[in-house]
Amino acid sequence: MSNSLGKIFTVTSFGESHGRCVGVIIDGCPAGLPVSEKDIQVELDKRKPGMGAASTRRAEEDKVDILSGIFNKHTTGAPICLLVWNQDSDSAFYEKDRALLRPGHADYTAFMKYGGFNDFRGGGRFSGRITAGYVMAGAIARKLLDIIGVEIIAHTLEIGGIEAQVKSTSAIKKAVEQNPLRCADPGATEKMLKAIEKARKEGNSLGGIIEGFAINVPAGLGEPVCDTMEGEMAKALFAIPAVKGVEFGAGFAVAGKKGSENNDLFAIKHGKISTATNNAGGILGGISNGMPITVRVAVKPTPSISREQSTINIDTMKNAKLEIKGRHDVCIVPRAVPVVSAMMAITLCDFILRARLIPEVVK
Amino acid sequence: MSNSLGKIFTVTSFGESHGRCVGVIIDGCPAGLPVSEKDIQVELDKRKPGMGAASTRRAEEDKVDILSGIFNKHTTGAPICLLVWNQDSDSAFYEKDRALLRPGHADYTAFMKYGGFNDFRGGGRFSGRITAGYVMAGAIARKLLDIIGVEIIAHTLEIGGIEAQVKSTSAIKKAVEQNPLRCADPGATEKMLKAIEKARKEGNSLGGIIEGFAINVPAGLGEPVCDTMEGEMAKALFAIPAVKGVEFGAGFAVAGKKGSENNDLFAIKHGKISTATNNAGGILGGISNGMPITVRVAVKPTPSISREQSTINIDTMKNAKLEIKGRHDVCIVPRAVPVVSAMMAITLCDFILRARLIPEVVK
Amino acid sequence: MSNSLGKIFTVTSFGESHGRCVGVIIDGCPAGLPVSEKDIQVELDKRKPGMGAASTRRAEEDKVDILSGIFNKHTTGAPICLLVWNQDSDSAFYEKDRALLRPGHADYTAFMKYGGFNDFRGGGRFSGRITAGYVMAGAIARKLLDIIGVEIIAHTLEIGGIEAQVKSTSAIKKAVEQNPLRCADPGATEKMLKAIEKARKEGNSLGGIIEGFAINVPAGLGEPVCDTMEGEMAKALFAIPAVKGVEFGAGFAVAGKKGSENNDLFAIKHGKISTATNNAGGILGGISNGMPITVRVAVKPTPSISREQSTINIDTMKNAKLEIKGRHDVCIVPRAVPVVSAMMAITLCDFILRARLIPEVVK
Amino acid sequence: MSNSLGKIFTVTSFGESHGRCVGVIIDGCPAGLPVSEKDIQVELDKRKPGMGAASTRRAEEDKVDILSGIFNKHTTGAPICLLVWNQDSDSAFYEKDRALLRPGHADYTAFMKYGGFNDFRGGGRFSGRITAGYVMAGAIARKLLDIIGVEIIAHTLEIGGIEAQVKSTSAIKKAVEQNPLRCADPGATEKMLKAIEKARKEGNSLGGIIEGFAINVPAGLGEPVCDTMEGEMAKALFAIPAVKGVEFGAGFAVAGKKGSENNDLFAIKHGKISTATNNAGGILGGISNGMPITVRVAVKPTPSISREQSTINIDTMKNAKLEIKGRHDVCIVPRAVPVVSAMMAITLCDFILRARLIPEVVK
Repeated sequence: MSNSLGKIFTVTSFGESHGRCVGVIIDGCPAGLPVSEKDIQVELDKRKPGMGAASTRRAEEDKVDILSGIFNKHTTGAPICLLVWNQDSDSAFYEKDRALLRPGHADYTAFMKYGGFNDFRGGGRFSGRITAGYVMAGAIARKLLDIIGVEIIAHTLEIGGIEAQVKSTSAIKKAVEQNPLRCADPGATEKMLKAIEKARKEGNSLGGIIEGFAINVPAGLGEPVCDTMEGEMAKALFAIPAVKGVEFGAGFAVAGKKGSENNDLFAIKHGKISTATNNAGGILGGISNGMPITVRVAVKPTPSISREQSTINIDTMKNAKLEIKGRHDVCIVPRAVPVVSAMMAITLCDFILRARLIPEVVK
Repeated sequence: MSNSLGKIFTVTSFGESHGRCVGVIIDGCPAGLPVSEKDIQVELDKRKPGMGAASTRRAEEDKVDILSGIFNKHTTGAPICLLVWNQDSDSAFYEKDRALLRPGHADYTAFMKYGGFNDFRGGGRFSGRITAGYVMAGAIARKLLDIIGVEIIAHTLEIGGIEAQVKSTSAIKKAVEQNPLRCADPGATEKMLKAIEKARKEGNSLGGIIEGFAINVPAGLGEPVCDTMEGEMAKALFAIPAVKGVEFGAGFAVAGKKGSENNDLFAIKHGKISTATNNAGGILGGISNGMPITVRVAVKPTPSISREQSTINIDTMKNAKLEIKGRHDVCIVPRAVPVVSAMMAITLCDFILRARLIPEVVK
Repeated sequence: MSNSLGKIFTVTSFGESHGRCVGVIIDGCPAGLPVSEKDIQVELDKRKPGMGAASTRRAEEDKVDILSGIFNKHTTGAPICLLVWNQDSDSAFYEKDRALLRPGHADYTAFMKYGGFNDFRGGGRFSGRITAGYVMAGAIARKLLDIIGVEIIAHTLEIGGIEAQVKSTSAIKKAVEQNPLRCADPGATEKMLKAIEKARKEGNSLGGIIEGFAINVPAGLGEPVCDTMEGEMAKALFAIPAVKGVEFGAGFAVAGKKGSENNDLFAIKHGKISTATNNAGGILGGISNGMPITVRVAVKPTPSISREQSTINIDTMKNAKLEIKGRHDVCIVPRAVPVVSAMMAITLCDFILRARLIPEVVK
Repeated sequence: MSNSLGKIFTVTSFGESHGRCVGVIIDGCPAGLPVSEKDIQVELDKRKPGMGAASTRRAEEDKVDILSGIFNKHTTGAPICLLVWNQDSDSAFYEKDRALLRPGHADYTAFMKYGGFNDFRGGGRFSGRITAGYVMAGAIARKLLDIIGVEIIAHTLEIGGIEAQVKSTSAIKKAVEQNPLRCADPGATEKMLKAIEKARKEGNSLGGIIEGFAINVPAGLGEPVCDTMEGEMAKALFAIPAVKGVEFGAGFAVAGKKGSENNDLFAIKHGKISTATNNAGGILGGISNGMPITVRVAVKPTPSISREQSTINIDTMKNAKLEIKGRHDVCIVPRAVPVVSAMMAITLCDFILRARLIPEVVK
């Protein structure tokens, strides 16, 4: 089950970038949840290409296809199979140059693990396209989170070294959907767009940071000592291709803080327990404390660049040169934003069911 | 099974800080592995207090007690139960002030999750003492890693904002055991010790960063798309109390890099495939690529500080003041170094068994 | 993951009887295994209706559709998604009488568990049609078992109280494919056919017993103390609708035996350790001993009978009368024979991978 | 985790017959459940030897030792570690004759699986003594079942071919604790005792059948299609050494029944839905239907008999003769009765938590 996330709300991924389809099975979703194709399509559309200058020109017209688990517009309690069929996949490049290991990609490691039998076309299982499955599952998870009022917001915090000035989560929420880079800061967006355009011209790519918030999370979610909120969410986030770091709350900045600076002091506010600061990112001892869960995710620059790169030919075991043609995102950060949201939603949904806060049948 | 790590080499934690014992069960260890109490004790001793100025004065004389799974000095294939008995635990403070939520600790979240039934003494399940179990399990994991030559090295990279200058892993390995802060840079160590002394006098605490390396890891370990090397290792590392961030290779620095800077170019070196740089931290597509696995872990400053802090009384639901007495580490980073090693060893061991590189019986 | 079997070779079922499709995802299959559609279709055809007098007249033309995990005619190591599309499903009966609980079916229990949201048409998830998925997964499992020479044979041992005289497993193997009832005893077959015809005329149904053998199983498979060979195989077999009992070797007959009668005495035979008798059914301490694994499965008579039955109306909560029309198997035993084989193959395959007898890549 | 049962209420077994201890860890028990040592000891005492003529003379004075998870006489939500320390173990026989494979025991299969490294003394992990752990876990499970009124009753149905006349479950419940064979039929008990005495004199042993009932089980428990009530309960029951068959309701008798005989007709009774007959054993479609869950378990005669038996010497690979001395139960059926109850309780408890019928904190 190395292609599954979650213990109760279990999401299993299948499909390949240039195979028949990319899909997901959700096992453990309560029965009685109203779900329409539109609910899922809305989320799916958020990761489609054409978000401004940043993305690939591959025309993905991904329409969700519901194969099982939904009947009379409600979940049935049975496994929900959702998929998008692949079209418009051009495998010629991959077939031709498959022996040339693309730097920064999984070509080499997949070759070593699967003995060369893996479907290498378009990156196969390692393609960003696989995340369409998580986004569809995340759409279902969000419907469940709605029941108890949990909200997920994610946005582009940084691209190519340019950092957005973070505002309130409500401001981010409003801004993010309209923005071509899913960035809530118009000034930073402009600079990022220029940096992206420059990188495109130079045949290069850019990385960045995505930040996510979960709001109205009840205190008490998380299953320490091993299935902590941080641990399970990080595991899900590292399943997104290109993610190389995950931090919560103050994150790596805690290293330079003193206890007196880092501790979030408890106080009664409007009759409820809360903390003035949120260095803990809403999590203490691996359990949510009711404050917003905040997470940041480092996304590496797309390894596919159109410059010539040194590499080796795995068949001849000789040094070689490689030039990647194809169509590629200069910066995947904007398209990864809804994927981060989806992973957060999936993780929280699993913990909510583990905490038995939603019954087997939703009404 | 929220107290377990690993799918094949499964480590289950039990015990409380001030209860009878702290222990661990390892299920799935191959039979025939020579294991002595000394093998485990050596690792256990690395996390004992008294590492210079940084640590608590609680006299922990932790001796491993092997309850099952080892017979005639070899593993039997049956579950291995290892524990350390608790002694010298002074619960008076915890009993007296239990209604006062300690900021930065799990008091509040545990209260919310377990309805006040949790063993709060000494932090109970949320105490750093629980990590003794991981260290014992890590000692067994290391014996298995020895078989295929994998080596784990961890060291203190940063304390209180003071960063060590990293050297070769072999230099780190040599330096780290002798150093009171598990830091391989003598100059930085001196500054760190001064910062710790200063924090102690001020009744404060310090955070830091630990870095780990796994060397000689065969290419092909990791189980994407969900059980990635990064994801599973991060999950294990987030089970260490106080960890708030985990990054691999270039980590968060990828956000400011271009693809041409971040891609590690493949080349044939001494007949083997390797990369000149290691921004990937030895992992591509969630699978090891044969280069050293490098991970950095952000450790927050100990939340127990001896200054007065604002908080609330959970019984009266009123604002209150709290002064934590007891004995506490000013900085837990040095003692967490062997725990990071243990978690890396446990994770790698599980992947090695999942990849079926070690048979059911070791000879 | 309540729709999954197996820990390493994991089979997840999805789909409904009258929904879009019935399918399965296999996660954990080694890469490099040659698999064609024909390999799967052969097994699928064994459970198709029209096996003589016993079965439904619903025209199921089930053709396997491979959605993922197979590339260039070999497994890739990625999840394998296999399905059959539903056609020819007539849901009129189910829509009309859905409030009348069919005795012996899961109508009531599904209603209670899923709050009435389950897809009730044709029994939904509780239909025998779901077993098409297991049969497809079993076809892949058998290809893996072939590698180490394990063979699975199953046959109809009893129908309607008429017992077949068991012969050698090789005789059974030869006879079973040609026989309309999957019974290796021609005399018994004739009587069974008459009993089936009689039951059909009377609007009734018949139960029976299926026996399975696994031959050339290496000694040492099984993972006690909890994941025993018997326990895991029984769990898989009880996932077949209508199974109410599972026994191994002498089974329930052990109750009347003395130790001296039941013990299988070890002896050296042709240089190999074996036992003269096989009351243990090839399993001691939950682990295979190299003798044939023998299992018997009790299959209840099809609950759908065309006689009028007393029941209740779940909407009105009043007593009612029900007459089931539709098309139904008088006796599902013959069609369940390949499903028993499939479940045995899946279980053994999982244990073989758990024992690490087949590497990650098959060549 | 091959030594664990249950998904939410997870019971992990450890320890060996002649090692330091036999124990169990329960992970996932809700917090706030009142548990005393006495609650557990009561169940443990039920499986102690000295139940009349049937059992071993090994003086087991098993006192439960609670190592973790219980604080202030309540469960804390943390893993509960319970164990009994071993005493009075005489390993001389096992050391001396270890190369002689005991027929009917796991000596050979354990040797093959663990390469001879297993702790063979007293059968090690394969000893009936391991079931003490399940009984302790079952005691906790029963406390949880009490909350929703579920009751478990088990009794000796058959020993040595002598069958007890079954009465009402309430009659069985009353009779069983006083009876030396845990049999509710005094007449049958007398015959059984004679048969046991005869077998003892002849140096032989007897098998039997245990029957279990779960009463007041709410309709809707079970997680099809793979984690059925039958499948999970059977898996747990097959973890009891010596069990070779498991059947529910009419069990293997369904093979001779017609649908019209086997279907349990629904009717409204006292305003509740129930069935007049219970051939389904309280389970339809793998889900409880509110009627008593009834299960029967076939227990093989103790393989240790004091007659000379043919076997082989695993070291010399030559045929040999073996005479087992030691102290052994002539018939383990009576002592296995509380183990069957425990396994039923553990399985039901897990399903109740999976169905989210008991919250995280019990009050």
